[in-house]
Amino acid sequence: MSFIFAFDHNHPRPPMELKELLGGKGANLAEMSSVLGLPVPPGFTISTEACRAYMDSGWPDGLDEELAAHLSNLESVAGRGLGDPGAPLLVSVRSGAKFSMPGMMDTVLDLGLNDESVEGLAQQSGNRRFALDSYRRFLQMYGEIVLGVDGDRFDSLFDEVKVSTGVAADADLSIESLDTVIERYKALVAEVTGDEFPQSPQQQLRAAVEAVFRSWNSPRARAYRRREHIPDDMGTAVNVQAMVFGNSDESSCTGVGFTRNPATGEPGSYGDFLVNAQGEDVVAGIRRTQPLHEMEDVFPGPYAELIDIFDRLELHYRDMLDTEFTVERGKLWMLQVRVGKRTGAAALRIAVAMTKDPKIALTQREAVQRVAPQHLDQVLHPRFSETDLPVITTGLAASPGAAVGTVCFQADRAVEMAARGVAVILVREETSPEDVHGLEVAEGVLTSRGGLVSHAAVVARGWGKPAVVGADALDIGPSSFTVGGTTVREGEVISIDGTTGNVVLGALDMTEGDVPDEFDLILGWADEVRGDAFGVQANADTGPDAERARSYGAEGIGLARTEHMFLGDRLPIVRRMILASDDQQESLALEELLEQQRGDFEELLAAMDGLPVTIRLLDPPLHEFLPTLDEVIEGETEVDLDEEAKALFRAARDWREENPMLGTRGVRLGILKGGLYKMQARAVAEAALARKEAGGNPMARIMVPLVVTAAELALVRGWIDEELDAVLGADRAGLDIPVGSMIETPRAALRADDIAAVADFFSFGTNDLTQMTFGFSRDDVEGRLMPRYLDEGLLPRNPFETIDHRGVGELVKIATERGRSVKPDLSVGVCGEHGGDPESVAFFASVGVGYVSCSPFRVPVARLAAAQAVLAGW
Amino acid sequence: MSFIFAFDHNHPRPPMELKELLGGKGANLAEMSSVLGLPVPPGFTISTEACRAYMDSGWPDGLDEELAAHLSNLESVAGRGLGDPGAPLLVSVRSGAKFSMPGMMDTVLDLGLNDESVEGLAQQSGNRRFALDSYRRFLQMYGEIVLGVDGDRFDSLFDEVKVSTGVAADADLSIESLDTVIERYKALVAEVTGDEFPQSPQQQLRAAVEAVFRSWNSPRARAYRRREHIPDDMGTAVNVQAMVFGNSDESSCTGVGFTRNPATGEPGSYGDFLVNAQGEDVVAGIRRTQPLHEMEDVFPGPYAELIDIFDRLELHYRDMLDTEFTVERGKLWMLQVRVGKRTGAAALRIAVAMTKDPKIALTQREAVQRVAPQHLDQVLHPRFSETDLPVITTGLAASPGAAVGTVCFQADRAVEMAARGVAVILVREETSPEDVHGLEVAEGVLTSRGGLVSHAAVVARGWGKPAVVGADALDIGPSSFTVGGTTVREGEVISIDGTTGNVVLGALDMTEGDVPDEFDLILGWADEVRGDAFGVQANADTGPDAERARSYGAEGIGLARTEHMFLGDRLPIVRRMILASDDQQESLALEELLEQQRGDFEELLAAMDGLPVTIRLLDPPLHEFLPTLDEVIEGETEVDLDEEAKALFRAARDWREENPMLGTRGVRLGILKGGLYKMQARAVAEAALARKEAGGNPMARIMVPLVVTAAELALVRGWIDEELDAVLGADRAGLDIPVGSMIETPRAALRADDIAAVADFFSFGTNDLTQMTFGFSRDDVEGRLMPRYLDEGLLPRNPFETIDHRGVGELVKIATERGRSVKPDLSVGVCGEHGGDPESVAFFASVGVGYVSCSPFRVPVARLAAAQAVLAGW
Repeated sequence: MSFIFAFDHNHPRPPMELKELLGGKGANLAEMSSVLGLPVPPGFTISTEACRAYMDSGWPDGLDEELAAHLSNLESVAGRGLGDPGAPLLVSVRSGAKFSMPGMMDTVLDLGLNDESVEGLAQQSGNRRFALDSYRRFLQMYGEIVLGVDGDRFDSLFDEVKVSTGVAADADLSIESLDTVIERYKALVAEVTGDEFPQSPQQQLRAAVEAVFRSWNSPRARAYRRREHIPDDMGTAVNVQAMVFGNSDESSCTGVGFTRNPATGEPGSYGDFLVNAQGEDVVAGIRRTQPLHEMEDVFPGPYAELIDIFDRLELHYRDMLDTEFTVERGKLWMLQVRVGKRTGAAALRIAVAMTKDPKIALTQREAVQRVAPQHLDQVLHPRFSETDLPVITTGLAASPGAAVGTVCFQADRAVEMAARGVAVILVREETSPEDVHGLEVAEGVLTSRGGLVSHAAVVARGWGKPAVVGADALDIGPSSFTVGGTTVREGEVISIDGTTGNVVLGALDMTEGDVPDEFDLILGWADEVRGDAFGVQANADTGPDAERARSYGAEGIGLARTEHMFLGDRLPIVRRMILASDDQQESLALEELLEQQRGDFEELLAAMDGLPVTIRLLDPPLHEFLPTLDEVIEGETEVDLDEEAKALFRAARDWREENPMLGTRGVRLGILKGGLYKMQARAVAEAALARKEAGGNPMARIMVPLVVTAAELALVRGWIDEELDAVLGADRAGLDIPVGSMIETPRAALRADDIAAVADFFSFGTNDLTQMTFGFSRDDVEGRLMPRYLDEGLLPRNPFETIDHRGVGELVKIATERGRSVKPDLSVGVCGEHGGDPESVAFFASVGVGYVSCSPFRVPVARLAAAQAVLAGW
Repeated sequence: MSFIFAFDHNHPRPPMELKELLGGKGANLAEMSSVLGLPVPPGFTISTEACRAYMDSGWPDGLDEELAAHLSNLESVAGRGLGDPGAPLLVSVRSGAKFSMPGMMDTVLDLGLNDESVEGLAQQSGNRRFALDSYRRFLQMYGEIVLGVDGDRFDSLFDEVKVSTGVAADADLSIESLDTVIERYKALVAEVTGDEFPQSPQQQLRAAVEAVFRSWNSPRARAYRRREHIPDDMGTAVNVQAMVFGNSDESSCTGVGFTRNPATGEPGSYGDFLVNAQGEDVVAGIRRTQPLHEMEDVFPGPYAELIDIFDRLELHYRDMLDTEFTVERGKLWMLQVRVGKRTGAAALRIAVAMTKDPKIALTQREAVQRVAPQHLDQVLHPRFSETDLPVITTGLAASPGAAVGTVCFQADRAVEMAARGVAVILVREETSPEDVHGLEVAEGVLTSRGGLVSHAAVVARGWGKPAVVGADALDIGPSSFTVGGTTVREGEVISIDGTTGNVVLGALDMTEGDVPDEFDLILGWADEVRGDAFGVQANADTGPDAERARSYGAEGIGLARTEHMFLGDRLPIVRRMILASDDQQESLALEELLEQQRGDFEELLAAMDGLPVTIRLLDPPLHEFLPTLDEVIEGETEVDLDEEAKALFRAARDWREENPMLGTRGVRLGILKGGLYKMQARAVAEAALARKEAGGNPMARIMVPLVVTAAELALVRGWIDEELDAVLGADRAGLDIPVGSMIETPRAALRADDIAAVADFFSFGTNDLTQMTFGFSRDDVEGRLMPRYLDEGLLPRNPFETIDHRGVGELVKIATERGRSVKPDLSVGVCGEHGGDPESVAFFASVGVGYVSCSPFRVPVARLAAAQAVLAGW
């Protein structure tokens, strides 16, 4: 077994496919060297297997020998020797794991320098200053990374010398001063480690490789991997490569180049370079870089070669690439290549353009795979184009996009201000149905309480408005909020970023979401891939929402929440129903609601004519339509309380629950207040009939929430069927109005066979199912607990964002199987947040779920994700 | 296939085993007739199969012919004819299902009377008045039950005749008046039904049988069956039997007799009789009955025969029996026999006595099966011996037993009053940890909010105090409560019955729980049956509780809730820990708690020396140790609020949760407040060490609550093991302190294999598991929703009382299997309410659970239930 492979090793498969073994950097260096024959400084890759062996049981047997052999080979190719004062070879030692972990792991440059070879370098380069500066950089880098000496101590010594010689810029240090620095650095190392700085280059190399291995398990690397869901047991490869110097002289330079514009996707190379500099100078941003195309004037030969290489790389990789290169004394060297990161607009344009390029000839299926879900988000939502103002706090990123507006603390006030043309951000501890008119006019919403399914979050996502919620550092008063000593008053302007959760004082510049023409093309291709096997529908509660959803490609409404229709000016009617002291009063209130609901449903059915519209009967607990406990306690202290207010407060106390999530809601409420569901069923039937009589093709479905036993569904279904028969007659006027069950409690999932016997379809409410399966109240755990759990690796992912395959997912699988064991053709969908998460969509498809329904703005993402799931073979 | 069997039919098996076919009444009549040859009036049973066939598809083919044949046979045995004016045969038509449904279904007596046969009866009996009175009773009974005429209309007609003839008592009506009544009754039937009263006895019989069939599905019968968990599809049998008349003359009587005293279990017959009367007169209670033994003087012959029959029946049935009999003109007839209901004390005494009776020779195993769990409850708790005061309201029966006391509305006040020797009932909307000192001194507790796991309910059960909770009709003020127009003030006396939920104004007489000697004997036999296969432990939090549990036979503590140790005078320390602004303050508070906890644990380990003591680390959310929201809102309005109070209110708001059940509690809290669990683990280790050094045999176990992932348990277990090592050293001082996981979330059950890899044992928290599997917050649904759900048959049982086999039970089964797939010998228990429910215990045993842990007072019940589960073959 070999642990080490030279870059030009003849692998049985293309090295670019061997990232698991060689790491990303090593695989691509080998691809350029061995397959493409590009000018790459010689070197070799110590494989990830060596790292894994090291993590298991220390420095692997035989690795020393392999290392020596490869080093010797490298020396002979380079015609120089590591530590050879005559012709010193310097090497870089860089980590390179399968997945990029930028800045997380360690690199040692200029390795091979010692007291003798530094003189050789001085001679060879004809530049003693350059050699000494390289040596002092190497001493510090090696000292810190390999020997563990505190970097600040090197910096202090360096500053002392600069001060004592009266020098300001590093570059102005004299050769003598550099000698002094080198001596002091070596003394520091000896003092801290108790040993002289290792002069043996072989010893340096082995220790540097070991340091890179070790850095795989540094706390910051582990934390990064947890955040990025990279397994801890992969290990990193280590690349040892002959150094080239872009800082040799004025015929040298270094740069980064993209094969196309990563911001716009426009064709043509793109990047920066810096004359007489090393890569770190480009990154550090101290000196001003020049745009890549200007290289044509300064380095015409290397530039032409580079552009040619770009073409060859694109043709070979069939993608847009990101490269690093160096010109050393007029000779071009490629140091790195990888697939380039890009903006959403660029991703779409590049994917489409590459299908049209006859040489690259990307297929449509490949193009679909080239666009990531977040690319779609980027083009759909406005973003901040700069982020230079200070972030005053960060909350939960609840609804993507950016918004700038004047702070406003009451919904009514927001309406007033908006009416005067002021853009407002509504800021509240939390929002309730009574704030909906304020949310409607606001640019965005910021709350200090509640999680990603809090009222504010759900409403904002439904409307595609940016929202930051649960920013619990905010102390919100009636007309100002305070955070970390800063007080922000009504009228001041803030910017909120619903994609990052950041809140900024002042107005940031925004880039509007800009949907390129390629958007519809790619999604059209995605739909072809997806075919009929998997549907994408939207959650929508109003005609305009439904129209928007349809414009985004929704193939129906998978969830129309009727509770949103009970708010605003209808709230008084709903309260009359709740407070009704006899059947007649209740009936009168229900009759009023019936009128309204019928109109709601007609609108939805019209907007989705010919496509299914799944209407969920009322779900939330009644107290959501009543004053909050705070309001009740405060209200009760008032002196002149009329009877109506007293009754309202009494009802609010009466319907208050310890754990409303697990209380009297959904079908439970439907059973206690039988008239309600009957009214809703009747409204659906009347609306469908009206649509049909108007020549439409209404496809209403009725869905019963929070079922735990088949008996509940049977009882309620009996009522519903009675109403449908009463309105539509025995032949149902030729309309098919299926009645289905939400599966959102663990028990419903387990007893899905019983329930399927009574249900025409299933729709998983995976949000509630996750809450109950974990015992996580999303509002309560997402702010305080979830970040800690994700950081500590107690949960691999937030189960509210990506379905928990092994827990909640098993229930979805069990329920689908058991449901279909009774009704083989049972329609099974998912409505809720997970429907817009690509990984979850793939999981659902794999267990036989037939469609997802998500917020209108997530529909394109779900269409793409479903297609990608098909292409990944589910 | 036969639908009908004569009482003396020669069945292939003893008829008493054929209750499914013949119903209970029919089976025992047949047993007496065909096997024992006792004097039973001849008759036949129409089987439950006929009823089921009728329910399926109407009157069964062939039933008419069978009925005619059996009737003809009955007539020839009786030597009389149905409707024969010369020798009229009268029959009773009575329902009789497999399970007794007293008063639920219909009976028709004196069938066979018509205008002609009534004259025959007059002649035959020599008593025209008797014949006419029988006819008018039959007309009304048949009119109501078979023909559906409103009974009130018969009563009005009857009263009219009495008034118009100036007669007060029924018995004083003249023969002429009875003739008038009969005419008017017949006219009424003709008016209502449009048909003359049926004169054909055959037609009467068929219609009466059909009416009994129909009555199986009457709403009240269905409701009764739902309450009693009797399936709807069993159907009833119908018994047609020749009438005998205990009201023929002074040489006739009727009575009910038990073969032993059903109240005390003492040997010797017991019952009542009434001379010259029919059964309904005994039941109606208008005339004063005589004790059975006085029959010896009045009817020496029949009495001797009856006593002889009692002996034969006991020998045959090997149990105490309840009989009905009639003497007609000196001749004894047995009308009914069934196993007699009995009190708890009687059940225990009779079971033991029958093992000692050489003729009956009940085995110990049989004796164990003869005692029902509720029998043990009866002897353990005081009961009301009379219930004649009006029930003012009924709440949830939360903790069994009866209590009488003076109403008191504050815990402090309760302590004051109790100190003066006043027995108090604490009445509160709900209780919180701050009321514990009041609960401690109260005789019982009554609340208007909260369910069977509310604070009041749990504490009361733990202490064996009667509790009625969630009596939501109560409107509780600061010094009085009002219910249904009645206001009860502090100082007034009420009685509460924690077994029924009844609340009575005034003091009822109580019978103290009286544990007979046979109690321990029977439970000892039960333990022998149970053997080592299944353990019974107790939930206990203090030394005295643990001692009590041990005295009831607990084989360890399966759940010590440490939160109960954080209350009372320790609450300020706990609050200091929560409010700590830095680590040092927190450590100081934890150090104080450590001292206290060590003492708590030492006490528990001492009381349970040599038996396992499973200590659950802190479970409840922090806000339970802080003021309630009501208190905060009220408190915040005060003017002179000191900094401490402000901090407390801030913390209360900060830790407040929307759904605390699904919030930051259990291991989640343990992870956020790491010092807490470490402190508790250290306290366990120090306590165990101290006990060991004192010569004891401490067997502590540590249990982590609310786990959802193995990673959580692994993290916390690491901390715990560190503390154990630190206190006990690497060899753990020879002590084994296993660390286990609660399985109380659906996800933990599904991922039990992962968790078992880190856990030494499992303990199911089936209460929380039920809450999450159903999405039922017990506090919220049990008052409002559960009664409705049980009445409507939406749930077969309250899943918090009896484990839901098909939902929650499946998770218990899955988790046990998956846990044991990783650790075949994994110890698996259940701690919580279900551990004291016999049916649940049987279920747990059947799926491999190894022990249950319940409140100390339920330990005997669990011991009995486990033995009965063994005997039932699991």
